[in-house]
Amino acid sequence: MDGGTISGEVFEICANIDDMTGEDLGAAMEILLGEGALDVWFEAIQMKKNRPAVKLSLLAAPGDEARLAEAVLRHTTTLGVRMNRCSRVMLARVSETVETEYGGVRIKRGLLGGEVVKEMPEYEDVRRIARENGQPLSAVRAMIAGGSGEAKRRFRHYKGGEYEYLGTARHSETEEELVLYRPLYNDSGLWVRPKTMFFENVTVEGKSVPRFEEIKD
Amino acid sequence: MDGGTISGEVFEICANIDDMTGEDLGAAMEILLGEGALDVWFEAIQMKKNRPAVKLSLLAAPGDEARLAEAVLRHTTTLGVRMNRCSRVMLARVSETVETEYGGVRIKRGLLGGEVVKEMPEYEDVRRIARENGQPLSAVRAMIAGGSGEAKRRFRHYKGGEYEYLGTARHSETEEELVLYRPLYNDSGLWVRPKTMFFENVTVEGKSVPRFEEIKD
Amino acid sequence: MDGGTISGEVFEICANIDDMTGEDLGAAMEILLGEGALDVWFEAIQMKKNRPAVKLSLLAAPGDEARLAEAVLRHTTTLGVRMNRCSRVMLARVSETVETEYGGVRIKRGLLGGEVVKEMPEYEDVRRIARENGQPLSAVRAMIAGGSGEAKRRFRHYKGGEYEYLGTARHSETEEELVLYRPLYNDSGLWVRPKTMFFENVTVEGKSVPRFEEIKD
Amino acid sequence: MDGGTISGEVFEICANIDDMTGEDLGAAMEILLGEGALDVWFEAIQMKKNRPAVKLSLLAAPGDEARLAEAVLRHTTTLGVRMNRCSRVMLARVSETVETEYGGVRIKRGLLGGEVVKEMPEYEDVRRIARENGQPLSAVRAMIAGGSGEAKRRFRHYKGGEYEYLGTARHSETEEELVLYRPLYNDSGLWVRPKTMFFENVTVEGKSVPRFEEIKD
Amino acid sequence: MDGGTISGEVFEICANIDDMTGEDLGAAMEILLGEGALDVWFEAIQMKKNRPAVKLSLLAAPGDEARLAEAVLRHTTTLGVRMNRCSRVMLARVSETVETEYGGVRIKRGLLGGEVVKEMPEYEDVRRIARENGQPLSAVRAMIAGGSGEAKRRFRHYKGGEYEYLGTARHSETEEELVLYRPLYNDSGLWVRPKTMFFENVTVEGKSVPRFEEIKD
Amino acid sequence: MDGGTISGEVFEICANIDDMTGEDLGAAMEILLGEGALDVWFEAIQMKKNRPAVKLSLLAAPGDEARLAEAVLRHTTTLGVRMNRCSRVMLARVSETVETEYGGVRIKRGLLGGEVVKEMPEYEDVRRIARENGQPLSAVRAMIAGGSGEAKRRFRHYKGGEYEYLGTARHSETEEELVLYRPLYNDSGLWVRPKTMFFENVTVEGKSVPRFEEIKD
Repeated sequence: MDGGTISGEVFEICANIDDMTGEDLGAAMEILLGEGALDVWFEAIQMKKNRPAVKLSLLAAPGDEARLAEAVLRHTTTLGVRMNRCSRVMLARVSETVETEYGGVRIKRGLLGGEVVKEMPEYEDVRRIARENGQPLSAVRAMIAGGSGEAKRRFRHYKGGEYEYLGTARHSETEEELVLYRPLYNDSGLWVRPKTMFFENVTVEGKSVPRFEEIKD
Repeated sequence: MDGGTISGEVFEICANIDDMTGEDLGAAMEILLGEGALDVWFEAIQMKKNRPAVKLSLLAAPGDEARLAEAVLRHTTTLGVRMNRCSRVMLARVSETVETEYGGVRIKRGLLGGEVVKEMPEYEDVRRIARENGQPLSAVRAMIAGGSGEAKRRFRHYKGGEYEYLGTARHSETEEELVLYRPLYNDSGLWVRPKTMFFENVTVEGKSVPRFEEIKD
Repeated sequence: MDGGTISGEVFEICANIDDMTGEDLGAAMEILLGEGALDVWFEAIQMKKNRPAVKLSLLAAPGDEARLAEAVLRHTTTLGVRMNRCSRVMLARVSETVETEYGGVRIKRGLLGGEVVKEMPEYEDVRRIARENGQPLSAVRAMIAGGSGEAKRRFRHYKGGEYEYLGTARHSETEEELVLYRPLYNDSGLWVRPKTMFFENVTVEGKSVPRFEEIKD
Repeated sequence: MDGGTISGEVFEICANIDDMTGEDLGAAMEILLGEGALDVWFEAIQMKKNRPAVKLSLLAAPGDEARLAEAVLRHTTTLGVRMNRCSRVMLARVSETVETEYGGVRIKRGLLGGEVVKEMPEYEDVRRIARENGQPLSAVRAMIAGGSGEAKRRFRHYKGGEYEYLGTARHSETEEELVLYRPLYNDSGLWVRPKTMFFENVTVEGKSVPRFEEIKD
Repeated sequence: MDGGTISGEVFEICANIDDMTGEDLGAAMEILLGEGALDVWFEAIQMKKNRPAVKLSLLAAPGDEARLAEAVLRHTTTLGVRMNRCSRVMLARVSETVETEYGGVRIKRGLLGGEVVKEMPEYEDVRRIARENGQPLSAVRAMIAGGSGEAKRRFRHYKGGEYEYLGTARHSETEEELVLYRPLYNDSGLWVRPKTMFFENVTVEGKSVPRFEEIKD
Repeated sequence: MDGGTISGEVFEICANIDDMTGEDLGAAMEILLGEGALDVWFEAIQMKKNRPAVKLSLLAAPGDEARLAEAVLRHTTTLGVRMNRCSRVMLARVSETVETEYGGVRIKRGLLGGEVVKEMPEYEDVRRIARENGQPLSAVRAMIAGGSGEAKRRFRHYKGGEYEYLGTARHSETEEELVLYRPLYNDSGLWVRPKTMFFENVTVEGKSVPRFEEIKD
C-alpha cells in the first residue's frame, strides 16, 4: 500500500464494430464475461457513412490479455482490436458479513490511508433480500445501513490499547485471511494480522487470555 | 402568422432496432432521406438482454406518413413502427442572396414577430466557398458576416414613410414571390407585398415614380 | 389489413431519472418486462446541474398503460411519468417452423401487401443451436438461410390453380390457426384460410381429394 | 386522486440541433430553465451527413407551451420545434421537514394509493449539509435515513383510533396547508384534513382536549 | 504470425470538442478520412457547464500520427489533442473474389490459427448489387452466402495430399501475391506459397504436371 | 516548438460507475474541477446486467495524477480507477485583448508553424457582453469578428523591416510577457521577444527611437 492505495495494471481492449447487430452484441457481452474479462462495456459511437456503431471495451487482468483479445476476434465481427496497458489505482478493500434480520449481508469497505471512504452492501445480497421479502431496493439498503452502523466493533489488546476492527481481507498470494484494524490511540493507520492470530489466546502471567478482547458497551 | 410564428403539423415515426448492423442502418438513412423524409436521425438506446440498439426516427410531412412508415418497414429489419402526430411551431423564414467577393451566398433569416432573431448563411454555400478557396469554414463565415451586414436595405415609400427590407418569401400555395418588410416609424410589425408590386412604378401627380425607393447613405 | 399493413395503438411511457443508480435501473428493466411491458429501453440524457441521467421508456399495450405507469412509479425513483398514445403500423407476420439438421427453427416472415419483405429466424432458436453446437451465430444463420430457402412450398388447388404457401398466422381474437398463401397466377395478393380447412379433404366427383396438394419437384 | 395517482398534462417540446456549439447549448439550457421550463435535457443524436447533433427537449406546463416554444426559437439556432401534448401520471407527494443534528431537512414522500412508495431527502438539503460538514453525500443520506426513521409519528384521535401522520401537503388551489394521515386500524387509505383543524383542541365532555394527540413510546 | 494473429501498433488521437457545430464536425470527419486516418469516429460526451460535446477520435498508422494530429488541430476548433500508442492484434485476412450471378463479389476471410473464424462479403459489393437489382441487402447477402458456400475449393498436390484453398494474401513488404492453404490430412495449420508457384507446373517423371490440381466433385 | 506545435504529456484517469446517481455525479464533476482537473467529462456506457452507466474521465497535469486519482476514489463510489499517460500535441496559443464598443474582449489565437489557424473570442467574455446587452451570442460574436479584424497590427523595425504583431504570450517558466510576431518579408516564421524590449526605445545615430513603430494606414 502506497499512499493508502493499491497499484496494479490492467489491459483495456477495444474494438469499433459497425457490422454486428445489437442482438449478437448482447450475446457477445455474456460470452466475454464468461471467458474471464474483468469488465465488458459498450459505448455508442458514430462512424463514417452515417453508421451508428458500438465500441466494445473490456478489461483484462495481466496475463489474460492475449487470450481475451482472441476471444473478441472470435466472438465478434471485428478483424482487429487495439490494446492499452493502463495503470490501476485501487482502494484497499475489506469485506465483512453483517447479520441482519434477513440474514447475512456482505459489506464492502474501501479504505484510503487509514480511513474508510466508502461502505457498500454487496449488490447481489441487497437484490436477493429485496426479492425474497417483496421490498424495494432502497428499503433494504436503509435497513442494512441501520444494521451495519451497529456493527462497528472495537477490541482491547491485552496490553490495554484500543483498536477499531475493520473487517477481514485475504492475502492475494497466500489467500490467508487477515484482520484489518487500526489503533484508536494514535494515527499510525492501518494494520493487518492473520485472523487466527488476532483471535487466539496468549499466555500472560501464566494465564491464557485473548490477545484482543471485544469491547461491549 | 400567429404571434409571429407559423404553425403546422408533422408526423414523427420511430422504430427501435436491435437486429440490424450499423453498416445497413447508414444505408437506410440515405434511402429514407431519398424517399422524402424531412429529417432522419439515430439515437443510441439500450434494450433488454444487454443489447446496444438504435432508435431510428424520421419526420414526415402530413400526407407522407403512411408511405414513409412503409418505407421504414421495407428498408429496415423492424416489424413495426410507432407514429405520433406533433404540432410544429416555426419561425417565419426569408431567404436572400447576398453578393460577396466569392459569389452569391444565400442567407436564411428567421423572424419572430417583426424581429429578425437569426440570420445564417446556407451551410452548402459556406462549404462550397471554403472548398473552392482552401479556407476554413469559420473564415468564410466571418467574411460573409461582414458582407451581409452591409446588405441591410432601407426604402422610402413615395408617401414618405421609411421601411426596412428584409428579403423575399414565397407564398406556399401560389409560389408567388413576395417582399417582406417592416415600417421603421411604428411597431405594426411585418408586412408582405408581391415583389412585382413592391418594385413597380406608380403615377403620382402625373409622374411615374417608384413605389419604394432605396435609401442610399 | 389496410395497404398491406396492420394498424393499432400503443402507449409510450417515459420518465427522466437522475437519482437512481445504474445497478438499480438494470433491475428495474427486468421487473418492468416481467410486468408485461412490450418493450423497455434506456436512453442516456443530460440534465441540469451537469447530471448524466437516463430516460426510461416502455411500450404498453392499450389497457395496460395505467398499470404499467404505476409500475414505473413503484419500481423507480421517479415521482411522475409522461404518457403518449401512438399509432402503430406493423407488417403482417407469419411464423413457420423449418426443419434443419439441428432441429426445428422458427422463421418469422413479415409481409407488406402480398410481398415477403423480411424473413428472419427466431433469435432464441439461433442462439440455442449456436450454443449446443459450439458454432458462431453467423454460421448458424447461414445454415438456416440455406435450409429455409428450400422450404418454399407450393400447393395446387384441386381446381388446378397454384399457390405459394407462406406459413401460418393466428387470428388475434379467436386464436384460430390460419394458413397464409397467395395465388401464383394473378396479383390478388394475400389470402388466409383456416388451417384445418386448408389441409382437409374435399369430395370432388364422388372422390375424397385434398383441397390443396403440395407440389413436389 | 384516481387509483392513487394524480393525472395531468404536460407539453414536450423538441428540436434537433446540428448548427450550435456545446458551449452555446449549455448556456441555452440555463436560459430555458430560467424562463420556466419544468425540465430541460439533451440527447445525443446522429443526423445526416455524418453530423453528431443534439436533441433539445423541454417540458412545459399547460399554458406555457407557446411562450416556451418561442423561447427555444429565440435562444437556439433552430428554425422550428415540434410539440406533443402528453398525459402525466404522478404520485401524490407530501413534504415534511425533519430535524437532524445538522438542522432541518425536507423529506419528500411519494404515495401510491395509501402507501408510501418512496421517501427521499431534498437533494439540495443533502448537498448543503455535506458541504458545511465536509462529509460525503452518502454519509449525510445515511445520517438522515437514521433520523427520518425515528420521525414516523403516530397520533391518537380523542375517540381512540390510531393514525400514522405522513406529513403536510398544500392544496393546489387554496394553498391551504393540510395534514395527510392514514388510519392504522383499517385499510381506508389516505385522508387529509386542514392542519389548523388537525392540531386544534376540541371540547369533549366539557373539557378541551386535542383532537389528535401524539403517541410517545 | 504469433498464436494465429498479427501484431502491430496504431496511434489513437482524441480531442474533446464543445465549440464546433455538428455541421462542421460532419465535414471534418470527411476531411480527416481523406487525409489518411484509418478510422474516425465521434462519441457524445458531457462536459462542464452543462455542455453536450463530442469526443473526436481517429486511428493513425505509425508514421502518420504527427501529420494527423496537425490535421485535427487545423480542421477542428480544438487547441490540443492527446495521443496514445496502442498495441494492435488482428486476424490474418485473406480476400477472394467469388463469381455470383450478379458478378464478382469480394469475400473477406479472417483466420485465427488455421481456422476461418469469419467470412464476410465486402460491404460495398453487397451494396452495389442491392442497388443495381433493387434487392434488400439481406437478400443479396443470402444469395452470396449460397454462392460462396460452393466456392470452397480443394486441390490435390502431385504427391497426393489434399489441401483446402483459402484465398490469396499479399505480403506486406514485397506486395507479392501468395496463396493461403491448409492440409486436410493433418493439423499443421496454415501455409502460404507464392501464387505463381502454387499454380505453376512441375516436372514429375519427365512429365509437366500442375503442382496442385483442383479437385472437382 | 517542433513542427509548429507544442508537445507535452497528460494523464487520463477513468472509472466506470454504475452505483452512483446522476445527481451525485453532477456534484462530483464540480468537485473534481475544483481539485484542479484540466477537464472532466462523462460518457454514457452500457454495462453488464442491463445497467446504464457512466464512464467518468478526467485529465490531470503531470504531477497531479496521484492526487486526482485519489480524489476520484474519495468523491465517487468507484473502488478503482485506471490511468493512462498520453502524449499531447498543442497549438502555440497567444492571447490578446481587443477593444470593442462593449469593452475589452480577450481573443485566443492558435498557431501552427507561423500560421494563425484559429482565432476565437474567450467564451466568458462573449457571454458577459451578451448578458449585459441583452444580445444573442451570435450577434456578439459577429460584432467582435468585425472588431478584431481591424485589430491586425503591423510594426516597422527601426531598420526598416515590417512585421505582423500577433499578440503576447507568457513564458511557462519565468512568466515573463513576450511579444509574438512574424516578419512579413520572408518565411522565417514566428519570433518572440520580451515585451518590454519590443516596446522600448533604442538609440540610433544618437537619437532615441522606438525599436518597433506601429504602421498606421
